[in-house]
Order: sequence, then structure tokens, then C-alpha cells
Amino acid sequence: MSKPDLRSDAGFLVEEPDLLPLALGCAILGTGGGGNPYLGMLRARELLRQGAQVRVIPFEALDDEAWVYALGGIGAPVVGVEKIKRGDECLRAMRAIEARTGKTASALISEEIGGSNGIEPIATAAQAGLPVLDGDGMGRAFPEVQMTTFFVYGQECSPAAVADDKGNVVTFDPVDTMHRLEALARAVTVQMGGGAGMCTAPMSMGFIRRAALPGTVTQALSIGRAILDARRTHADVLDRLLLAADATLLFTGKVTGVTRELKGGFSVGSVQVQGDAEYNGSTADVAIQNENLVLWIDGAVRVCVPDLIMLVERETGEPITTELVKYGLSIAIIGMPAHALLKTPEALKIMGPAAFGYPGIDFDAHRL
Amino acid sequence: MSKPDLRSDAGFLVEEPDLLPLALGCAILGTGGGGNPYLGMLRARELLRQGAQVRVIPFEALDDEAWVYALGGIGAPVVGVEKIKRGDECLRAMRAIEARTGKTASALISEEIGGSNGIEPIATAAQAGLPVLDGDGMGRAFPEVQMTTFFVYGQECSPAAVADDKGNVVTFDPVDTMHRLEALARAVTVQMGGGAGMCTAPMSMGFIRRAALPGTVTQALSIGRAILDARRTHADVLDRLLLAADATLLFTGKVTGVTRELKGGFSVGSVQVQGDAEYNGSTADVAIQNENLVLWIDGAVRVCVPDLIMLVERETGEPITTELVKYGLSIAIIGMPAHALLKTPEALKIMGPAAFGYPGIDFDAHRL
Repeated sequence: MSKPDLRSDAGFLVEEPDLLPLALGCAILGTGGGGNPYLGMLRARELLRQGAQVRVIPFEALDDEAWVYALGGIGAPVVGVEKIKRGDECLRAMRAIEARTGKTASALISEEIGGSNGIEPIATAAQAGLPVLDGDGMGRAFPEVQMTTFFVYGQECSPAAVADDKGNVVTFDPVDTMHRLEALARAVTVQMGGGAGMCTAPMSMGFIRRAALPGTVTQALSIGRAILDARRTHADVLDRLLLAADATLLFTGKVTGVTRELKGGFSVGSVQVQGDAEYNGSTADVAIQNENLVLWIDGAVRVCVPDLIMLVERETGEPITTELVKYGLSIAIIGMPAHALLKTPEALKIMGPAAFGYPGIDFDAHRL
Repeated sequence: MSKPDLRSDAGFLVEEPDLLPLALGCAILGTGGGGNPYLGMLRARELLRQGAQVRVIPFEALDDEAWVYALGGIGAPVVGVEKIKRGDECLRAMRAIEARTGKTASALISEEIGGSNGIEPIATAAQAGLPVLDGDGMGRAFPEVQMTTFFVYGQECSPAAVADDKGNVVTFDPVDTMHRLEALARAVTVQMGGGAGMCTAPMSMGFIRRAALPGTVTQALSIGRAILDARRTHADVLDRLLLAADATLLFTGKVTGVTRELKGGFSVGSVQVQGDAEYNGSTADVAIQNENLVLWIDGAVRVCVPDLIMLVERETGEPITTELVKYGLSIAIIGMPAHALLKTPEALKIMGPAAFGYPGIDFDAHRL
């Protein structure tokens, strides 16, 4: 993190050494999904090296009337690795909405801090010359467009736009429901080769203050820095990670089985873990659908979505995505309570266990 | 057809008795596909009964600078029968493009005269209070968005828009190729339930004069009236149809076999016909892909796309679509030469035999 910038009154300028820890922290908050932030980090680094400046600002830095645009990549995470972005997909999607609404952006905000979309707005902000708000709409990663606190608390469904690497822009306006937007944008993204940049309807800063999760960019940065510092100083990475993330250690053990299949565009399956000696023969099971959804220990639900379930390598603290988890890995399973805005009755309808096909699990009975 | 309207200087007002023959003529020009015009006809009739007026005008009626919008339904023809339209899909798609470009429509034109899209602009014109140009961009039916003379001769790929029955509108702008527009619009249409209204980029009347096929609304009307008149007066329907359409009788016989499967959203297959006695044991084969594509007689190519191949019931002149053709039908196969604008080298690339998977068939060697 940079020192306070004297030319400005709030937040901090992103500097090159911030990018690696930020990407790592975003990957941790991806709870197994959200896509790999590495390529986005390289793009952001390139832009900073060319002289671009990006300031991360707290919610207090803007007036209620300022317009904020939420953006991020849409598509299968695995495609994001193989299909190199042109780099201005999100920017062009945003410009399309700006032109349509006449509402000029004062700042950008991440749709989801977890995974690649945690860093995507940094690169877009560098291109647009705009600041990025220190916050997001998930506090983690979720697989679908409508699963944001923005939507839960009243963001308009339209206009929204997706843009691809060939210059194509598709605008959705009007759209009757956010689920429809998800279906339409997903179908367009598939035609665009499986990955695209997306921007949703502008939100006033007054709304953002009520509907967004504050401080999550800083949080990701702190988590990433804690892990990197611990590795450098040969401290216990897991301890430092738990401290920095204010997380709970739920289980440690060896992966003994993984089932995983592609179903409706999602990676769906489960991970079986045999506990380390101190767990006295206990086993853990993790249900996955792009992200880690439910953790059972000895058959009993221990943690469930929207609370965060993260799998990391026991020794290095490296986050393990649902695509890469495999037999024999020595892992720690850690948990973090989701932000309060994700746990209201209206939020749980959109991103609680039932929304992911577990209507029998009562979130409130298992919340961290 | 109505008498000349003294309040205006060109074309004719569509009256209720025009609608049935127009729909029938459009179905004939559908060459086996293009969707059933019946529901569109009912919508147009309802609008006329409510007092709407629609004038069909010749190309001479507008100045070069006037803006013309081409529109029609997009989707699987069979869905068009089961999924009742809200009725203003094309209008809302057009309004989206008008708002975006600031180019106010002076008239509408059909993307394709064959099938349901021959009558769709009549209903939209009734809602919009606009005239319809006597012409279209195919002179028949084709399965894909890019297969119009508009596109072949330079219509912009964007902006274009599709709208559904629930109020959703999706705009494509910019789009790099017309094939991309086809792919994106098709994917969106599937998410919209399989059928939607579509409007493409505005064209100047000067461009329309060079790129559109003139007189095809009048042609469809004449064909439909000839068939209905012949039925009413017990004249030979086939004779009257051939005369009105300036068409060639190619074969008559009984359908002895139909193979048909859904492949990539299209009805693909072939029809086998055993010739009537005067054909001395000859057989005909027709290749279909939504529309009738190629006619072989005794194994030799007789007619191929873009020339028109129509199957009609021998006695009634009723057009037989590729979905409804079946064993035992007594049919006549008639052919019409495509308009010259469909037979240039650049047009044949888009809608000649090779574009439909018959690179070995040389159109010029078989043209009617």
C-alpha cells in the first residue's frame, strides 16, 4: 500500500507492489471460485508502469449524488485463463451505459472482490482515469450476475452491457428481472467465446453507501500481504492468514476424493477430506458449485453459503480453487462470516443455501 | 387490394380483404420455410379493425434521404406457432434503434417476404403509423439474419436490436460482422423463449433503391389472390398459380419419403417424390434446411438456392412447409428464378449453394 498521497484527501494510490498481495487476497476471498486474478494483475501492472494512477477511495470520499459503475468479467473462470482479454472489455461496456444514461461515472466498484473480479476494476480504472471504491457487492465470489448486494437492495436491472475482445458490445435495456439479465448476458457471453466484460446500471453513491460492502479492497490487500509476509519471514502462514482475515480454522487434513463435473456451465461436485491426527478420524465434505458452498464435518453441516468457506494449502496458504483441488493435497479449511448485508432474509433468498439447491439447510442454524 | 387513395399519391392502403391473399402469397414465397404468416395476419387484421391504416408504397414515393427500417421475427418457425407474440416486439426493437441513432423512420420494409416476416411489417406499420415499402431483402425466405440483399450490398451490422414479449430489449452496437450479429441475436432469441422481434440498422432510401428487391409485397398479394380466385371459381389452381408467379412447373408426384431432423436449430433433411405417370418413372429429391434448397430429378441437380423451389398441394395450391411435408401427399414442385440481386458473385457467397453446405453445386450451371 502506498503512503497517503498529498495531492488528495482520501484513500491511497495503488502502487505496483500492492498488486500481487491484492491478487492473492482476492483469490482467497474467491472461496474456491471467481476466476484467477493473475492475468488481471498483469494488465493492471502494465498500466501502472505506463504511468496510469489508480486511487482506491473510501465511501466517504464521494457525495451521495455521484454515479458509481459496478463492473467485472463474466464467463467461465477456466476460459479466463486461456482466452486472453483485449483488456478494455469492461471499459467499453461501461462507456456504453454511460452514453445511454448520460450519467458520468465518478468512480468504479467491483461486483465481486473474490477472484479475478476483485482486480478487474483496478485495470479499468487505470484506463478510465477514475478512482475505485474500497468495497464490492459480494465480499466473496458468487457464480451469477444477480448475486450481489447491489441487486438485493435495489439496483436497477438495466441498462447493462457486455463487451468482448473483438469490439462487440451488447446492451440490455430494458430487462424485466435480474435473473433474465443473467440468462441473456450468459448466452451472449457464450457466443463471445466464453468470456466478456460486463457493466451494470449506474448507482448513486447514496445507494452504494446502503447496499455495498465497505472496505473489501483493503481487506483483500491485508490478507494477501499477511500471507506473503509470513512466507518471507518463515512465520506460520496459516496463523497469519487467520489473524489477517479474522477467520476461523475449521479443519485440516488430506484430500481423499474429488468428484467434479460440468453441469449447466458450472463446476459442480464435492471434495472429501480425511482429518489430520488431531481430528481423531473425522472427515470433512465440501460441496462445490464454482465456489465452496457447504462444509459438513462427520456428516453434520458446519458452515454454509453465504458464509465463506476457503480451502488453502496447509503450508503456503495458497488458495485452492475448485478446479485445481485434487487427491493428496494437505489443506486447511477456514471460514469467515459473510457481511451482514448478505444475511438478511432478502439476501438469503438470492444467495443462501436454497438458491444453490440446498433448501433443507437453514443458514441461521449454522452461521459462523 | 384497395382502390387508389385520393389523399395520397402513391401505393395503396391495405384493407382487410387483402390480408388473407397476402399471407397466402407470403407462404408460397417462403419456399417451405419462413414461418406461418397466419398469426401475424390475425394481428394485422385486428389492428385494421381498430382503425389503423397501413399504406404500401413503391420505392419512388420516398426521397433518397428518408430512413427506412427493416424488421421481422427471429426464431424457430415452429415456436412462432406455439408462442403467441405480444404483438409489438418489432416495434420496440425499432424504437430502440431509432432512439439510439436519432434517425426517425419514414417507412418500414420486410427483411424477408417469404413466410411470417412478409406480413410482420404490416402489423408493425399499423402500430407505428408508418407506411411499408413494396419490397424486401430476400424475395423469398432464408434462415439467417445475414442472408439479405441489404447486408450483401452494404447495410451496417449495427445497431440492431431484438425485443421479446416481456418487454426485454437487447441492442447490439457495435458488432464486427453480420455473422456475429446472427450468432448473438440467435443466442438471445433462444433465451427469450425461441422467438423475438428484430430490427436492423437504418438504411437510407437511396441505399434501399440499390439494395432491396422491389414489388415483392404486390407480388405476394397477386400470387395469393390468384390461388384464392382459382379455388373460388373451380379453375385449375396450379395453372393460375404458375401464371401469377411467373413460375415453372418442375415436377408433380407423390411424396414417398421424408427424412428430417433438428440440427443446430434448423430442420434439415430431404423429401423424396415419385413422379406422376407423365414423368415415366422419374423421381425427385428435395434437400431441406428450413427452406427447400436443392431439387434433383433422377439424381441430377435441376434447381438450387437462391432460386426458389416451392412444394404445393397439387389440387389446392396450398404451400407445403418443410415441417408439414409428409408421406403420401400429392404435390407439385414449382420453381422461380431469384431476383438478379441474389445472383451476383457477392450475393451467392452469402446465399448460394456453398453457404448451405453444397460447395459442389455450381449455381450458374443450374439457374432457372
